[in-house]
Amino acid sequence: MTHPALPNLILEPLVRAALMEDLGANGDITTLTVVPPDVTYSARLNAREDAVVSGMQIAELAFRLVDPTLEVSCHVADGQRCHVGQTLMDIHGNAASILSAERVALNFAGRLSGVATATAAMVQQTQGTDARITCTRKTTPGLRLVEKQAVLHGGGFNHRFSLSDAILIKDNHIAAAGGVAAVLSATKARASHMMKVEIEVDRLDQLAEVLTVGGADVVLLDNMSNDTLTQAVEMVSGRLVTEASGNVTRDSVAAIAATGVDYISSGALTHSYRTVDLGLDF
Amino acid sequence: MTHPALPNLILEPLVRAALMEDLGANGDITTLTVVPPDVTYSARLNAREDAVVSGMQIAELAFRLVDPTLEVSCHVADGQRCHVGQTLMDIHGNAASILSAERVALNFAGRLSGVATATAAMVQQTQGTDARITCTRKTTPGLRLVEKQAVLHGGGFNHRFSLSDAILIKDNHIAAAGGVAAVLSATKARASHMMKVEIEVDRLDQLAEVLTVGGADVVLLDNMSNDTLTQAVEMVSGRLVTEASGNVTRDSVAAIAATGVDYISSGALTHSYRTVDLGLDF
Amino acid sequence: MTHPALPNLILEPLVRAALMEDLGANGDITTLTVVPPDVTYSARLNAREDAVVSGMQIAELAFRLVDPTLEVSCHVADGQRCHVGQTLMDIHGNAASILSAERVALNFAGRLSGVATATAAMVQQTQGTDARITCTRKTTPGLRLVEKQAVLHGGGFNHRFSLSDAILIKDNHIAAAGGVAAVLSATKARASHMMKVEIEVDRLDQLAEVLTVGGADVVLLDNMSNDTLTQAVEMVSGRLVTEASGNVTRDSVAAIAATGVDYISSGALTHSYRTVDLGLDF
Amino acid sequence: MTHPALPNLILEPLVRAALMEDLGANGDITTLTVVPPDVTYSARLNAREDAVVSGMQIAELAFRLVDPTLEVSCHVADGQRCHVGQTLMDIHGNAASILSAERVALNFAGRLSGVATATAAMVQQTQGTDARITCTRKTTPGLRLVEKQAVLHGGGFNHRFSLSDAILIKDNHIAAAGGVAAVLSATKARASHMMKVEIEVDRLDQLAEVLTVGGADVVLLDNMSNDTLTQAVEMVSGRLVTEASGNVTRDSVAAIAATGVDYISSGALTHSYRTVDLGLDF
Amino acid sequence: MTHPALPNLILEPLVRAALMEDLGANGDITTLTVVPPDVTYSARLNAREDAVVSGMQIAELAFRLVDPTLEVSCHVADGQRCHVGQTLMDIHGNAASILSAERVALNFAGRLSGVATATAAMVQQTQGTDARITCTRKTTPGLRLVEKQAVLHGGGFNHRFSLSDAILIKDNHIAAAGGVAAVLSATKARASHMMKVEIEVDRLDQLAEVLTVGGADVVLLDNMSNDTLTQAVEMVSGRLVTEASGNVTRDSVAAIAATGVDYISSGALTHSYRTVDLGLDF
Amino acid sequence: MTHPALPNLILEPLVRAALMEDLGANGDITTLTVVPPDVTYSARLNAREDAVVSGMQIAELAFRLVDPTLEVSCHVADGQRCHVGQTLMDIHGNAASILSAERVALNFAGRLSGVATATAAMVQQTQGTDARITCTRKTTPGLRLVEKQAVLHGGGFNHRFSLSDAILIKDNHIAAAGGVAAVLSATKARASHMMKVEIEVDRLDQLAEVLTVGGADVVLLDNMSNDTLTQAVEMVSGRLVTEASGNVTRDSVAAIAATGVDYISSGALTHSYRTVDLGLDF
Repeated sequence: MTHPALPNLILEPLVRAALMEDLGANGDITTLTVVPPDVTYSARLNAREDAVVSGMQIAELAFRLVDPTLEVSCHVADGQRCHVGQTLMDIHGNAASILSAERVALNFAGRLSGVATATAAMVQQTQGTDARITCTRKTTPGLRLVEKQAVLHGGGFNHRFSLSDAILIKDNHIAAAGGVAAVLSATKARASHMMKVEIEVDRLDQLAEVLTVGGADVVLLDNMSNDTLTQAVEMVSGRLVTEASGNVTRDSVAAIAATGVDYISSGALTHSYRTVDLGLDF
Repeated sequence: MTHPALPNLILEPLVRAALMEDLGANGDITTLTVVPPDVTYSARLNAREDAVVSGMQIAELAFRLVDPTLEVSCHVADGQRCHVGQTLMDIHGNAASILSAERVALNFAGRLSGVATATAAMVQQTQGTDARITCTRKTTPGLRLVEKQAVLHGGGFNHRFSLSDAILIKDNHIAAAGGVAAVLSATKARASHMMKVEIEVDRLDQLAEVLTVGGADVVLLDNMSNDTLTQAVEMVSGRLVTEASGNVTRDSVAAIAATGVDYISSGALTHSYRTVDLGLDF
Repeated sequence: MTHPALPNLILEPLVRAALMEDLGANGDITTLTVVPPDVTYSARLNAREDAVVSGMQIAELAFRLVDPTLEVSCHVADGQRCHVGQTLMDIHGNAASILSAERVALNFAGRLSGVATATAAMVQQTQGTDARITCTRKTTPGLRLVEKQAVLHGGGFNHRFSLSDAILIKDNHIAAAGGVAAVLSATKARASHMMKVEIEVDRLDQLAEVLTVGGADVVLLDNMSNDTLTQAVEMVSGRLVTEASGNVTRDSVAAIAATGVDYISSGALTHSYRTVDLGLDF
Repeated sequence: MTHPALPNLILEPLVRAALMEDLGANGDITTLTVVPPDVTYSARLNAREDAVVSGMQIAELAFRLVDPTLEVSCHVADGQRCHVGQTLMDIHGNAASILSAERVALNFAGRLSGVATATAAMVQQTQGTDARITCTRKTTPGLRLVEKQAVLHGGGFNHRFSLSDAILIKDNHIAAAGGVAAVLSATKARASHMMKVEIEVDRLDQLAEVLTVGGADVVLLDNMSNDTLTQAVEMVSGRLVTEASGNVTRDSVAAIAATGVDYISSGALTHSYRTVDLGLDF
Repeated sequence: MTHPALPNLILEPLVRAALMEDLGANGDITTLTVVPPDVTYSARLNAREDAVVSGMQIAELAFRLVDPTLEVSCHVADGQRCHVGQTLMDIHGNAASILSAERVALNFAGRLSGVATATAAMVQQTQGTDARITCTRKTTPGLRLVEKQAVLHGGGFNHRFSLSDAILIKDNHIAAAGGVAAVLSATKARASHMMKVEIEVDRLDQLAEVLTVGGADVVLLDNMSNDTLTQAVEMVSGRLVTEASGNVTRDSVAAIAATGVDYISSGALTHSYRTVDLGLDF
Repeated sequence: MTHPALPNLILEPLVRAALMEDLGANGDITTLTVVPPDVTYSARLNAREDAVVSGMQIAELAFRLVDPTLEVSCHVADGQRCHVGQTLMDIHGNAASILSAERVALNFAGRLSGVATATAAMVQQTQGTDARITCTRKTTPGLRLVEKQAVLHGGGFNHRFSLSDAILIKDNHIAAAGGVAAVLSATKARASHMMKVEIEVDRLDQLAEVLTVGGADVVLLDNMSNDTLTQAVEMVSGRLVTEASGNVTRDSVAAIAATGVDYISSGALTHSYRTVDLGLDF
């Protein structure tokens, strides 16, 4: 299913800032110098490889912000697959406007399609299991919103958006609070009922303590072998949502999914993706 | 040589925005809920792999913006090499503050070290030649400044920063202007003397026309075979700066450098880098 | 317990904007016209009525942003009670600076202490029960962060911070989705494991359906009589967190708490509070 | 008479910021998860009590900023009275858009109608006199513009908008300057001819000195009994505009107005108003 | 007398924006390329002509924002006279920092000293009369605050700061409202008591009507001959403040002042001033 | 030829900020008080003197931002000449909107036409030579973009836009780097191929050294007599672009141009221009 679009209100400041960054302080000097103002172009945004598309809404917004008179029609929605050579978008209008917006549109769409495509590839590896792929907070500074959207477009799920929307207790928090019991007790006493609580464990004895103490909704099973993961899932037995992290790659993910964990989180989806090759042809 | 540091004035808005993105609307709820306000930590930012470091100035700024009382000392400057296990930075002070700034510091430093390391790897391939490695405008939206700095830290050179600081004439500009002669004539008539002019050619006959017409400072030799590049360098014979682009990888770059071109530009340096594994240990 | 303080980083833009709003385009013209630049004052921020204090961190920030050389010492932390006549803060330094920051400091501290005091009054009514008081999204535009902090300072709990950090399904959502089963099915299929799901019901038969279908974490029991609430709590029997809303006042809240609900939410805590009378005496 | 509308240019940043605050970093997750993108709604913004309306222009702007394709028609202008059950505005279009903008529209309109209604109630108490009701700078940080507009909508008048647009000399200014004569002398020497000068007095002997010295346009009679106010008005005898402040409530205001003062200022109009109950019905 | 300084809080956004404009997207590339990071300089900001100084607070702020470690000592305060060759400010510290801030500091200080010097020259022409020199809203977009401060530094007075802080009724307003009586009646009915009212007249019969109708505080006598101005002042006879405008130059102003008007306003003070020659010497 | 227009995207933040500055915190109080909301006006923006026009795009944007329903038609494009009495623009629509935008439109257009006109006058003096007129970084803080555009509209050329888009080595850089050879060596080693390098010389022996060392693209001949300039041009003999600066006035420029220099730069074009008299007539 195509993911519903965010209001442009939310995306516009990001796209506007990127355009100002690329146009620079005094605009597209090449175009201003050599392109006659009355030339019009028909351009096609084409895929140069197979991919899951993300960033089409943003690319369209980039063209329209530079020149509201450009005619833009989008043929592939965010979240859909495309094939090499396929035209994703048609843009018609003032040549200088199209040339001035081109790079920003491609920089967003190529990166976000990269995230979506990498996510979809991992999701595919988990087919036949109930495991879901999720991202982390290892996103590009400034692009968290759109990279997280791209994970959704690729069929994945989002983890916390920021430090303020859920509780995730790691080893340093446990140490500072004085142990698992103390940390979960503080959480029960002070956390809102609208806030999920996740706690990270490295070993099964820690997991046992978490299960005994109670107060968590999700357990993060960090850097465990698949055998240990399988044991952990059995120990939890549905009382908590389970999430596996650590050494998650396209190659390893199928076996991790087979352990029965509910979620598998991968930082690489957003921190080391490859940009999909898209191009604008005139 | 260590690259001189930019004033924090320029970097601060970017780091501040990234911190606000990660802290979210109401702050680090985990830390606020479970970490007692008076706990102090000593943390080390450690390299988990060999790399060329970039982003240390930014990481330090991130910690200080969250809490100006944190003591931060940096042991490896931007542009220097580090080895797996090496401590890059010590941070001492309020535990909640360190935990709240950690992810942003790592997200910047890991990515930028990724760019610097990839650049250094390419630079190394060109040793023994005069070719220089340069980046493009295929940077991450919002991060152009710091990614371009990271290219410098890796030993590379910067291409145009934005559309407004040099002229780069591509095929679509030539088509719109009515040919190479027309486009270079417009440039001579209207471009400032402080503005470099580069023109892209795909074939040697185009190069010949550029040389005949005059008015360019740099020629971009796009997607040419190494044989053709060698011929192009001979044709140019020092009259223009030469830049090769297209299919530049760590494997191909040595042979391209051997053709005698002055610059080799690679979009992948900034659009598809791998994040260097850095971690904060307490 | 005193609530841990947010980093000033998060609060500063709000306080800075309020100061600019009050100083106006060309500053405090009265002070600039009549107060000699070298006069110093010692001022006391005094409570003119009993209250639970909130906004002290912000008031201090207001004075320091106008003039970093002011000496500010705070005697009562956010979340503590104060009594009529008590001095909450001492400010010493340039008279013009103190006079220029006074109104903004008081406007924040009076309002936020109003929220904290109103919250504490409701919390007190629920003593002897396990019910917790929580706020809503009916906050003052622009002040959600600080009003929600003030609810914490008063001993209450926070509900969703924004539309993006938890799912709350109301009747219009149910209608649009095609019924309770459809809406919860969509949620199960698409919501993140880090996102709480709350669903609003008006009647016990709706509650029964929610319990049957599953997939919710919290149920909002809206506008029910106390008898119905008691029945609802019995039906839920601990399987969901229960929250009561509608007609919650200082007079009605004790009886609602006695029904056994886990949370009681009140919009009036943030939409119709009375400003606490604080004053600056020289 | 209906007050003329401000240009949207001035209001838009405030409404945009409020929408971003409420939508949060990644949008209305409930709507995105459960509402099909193609559902349309017709909604009515209804009054649930009698009121003087303010905030309609802003509510309309909120809906249009979230989705420019929404059809909004407003039936009651800012400054007009409405009755319980009356429909103030019709909104038709995409269901998700309406649901996403609803809370911000209501948060503004409810609060501002609260200010207008409280103002109108005080104005009504002064009928038969020439006294005018005015607000103060005790406004909500960030909302001064719209709260001051709401005072106008309620039939009141605005006092200073900020510290920079008129001179108001209080006791601390007099002390710092060295007395009434010194402070008014400084004002005469340095204040612009476009700047009104008001001076606060607590006692009739101070008032006598102000009248003798000259140089003020308005006198603020602070915390005086009604008898003393009557004497003050006689002493002034039209040479200055008179303004009474202190202990102004809906109950006390008629008697204050009867003393013959020109203006009566009330901080409570903007610092402790009750939100008018408005609701969106589908 | 030296004019009291505005809080840096108000000036900082302006100076920060100017520095970002001049540093550009990637900083002072010359300094970064050729100046070794450890070179220190002692620089003197010197006057190259006689002037009344303005912009020293801003120049100091510019240096400190680029590098908080620079030592800046200011020898001449805003509003004081300086002579050719006089050192206004000493700056010591990192050479690159000084060079990077130099142009912004000079651009502000030269312009603002130009405004102050032009104002002082006009003020001098009016000595022996009671006429005061005032500016208009014909200021440079973005610089109104600092240009108006510079008028004060030159011994002048400020007119309205913006459209929102006083009422100035011109011929087009009178036409739209339906005549002088109608426009002043509207003002009396609706304007706040803290808002001065000025009305423009071109002829003595208009002035007579204004005096008859009442309701204005100030009358703007526009483009009148000096004889007519003298008559106008007699007609007004102290009942209103009088302001003359139109064809005000350094040559004409003494004769205008001799007519007895209270204020003389000049747009040229801020729209056509000459930059004072200041330089940084190392 | 008319210079191509920048996208409004780049200009809008500047115009919006200027409108907010002039409207002030609560809008055009005169218009709101006395102009009935339904009055419409037809206004003409007229030239009151001969000029080269700049700022028409901005003036139109100012009117449209205040009120998108205003009908604006522009009869003279930026860069064209106008004559006294000529109508440059027609504006039709709501009277209050036109009056509220008037001053900002005129403040921009008058100043920028002043820059364009001063530039054109200098350009005219150089006719019959190949010398081009160029501006400097001595621009008004915040207005660099539009003042540089105005220089283009007047027939001039732009120098560096900011410190980040070209290298300009002055005496202090040379001193810090340790001489001309050292500074040019650093530049050759570290500057990008897309970055022009200019070096300032005061004497012919310095010029000789620059020519010997190589590595510069442009030489700035500062404060030389015309005889020395002539010698310098001969010495350079086309190997570098030459630029003369210092004591450039409308009177001196023809003789400087006759020396054969390529560019003549004038700070006064942007730091001491006279505003062109434009007015809005109804």
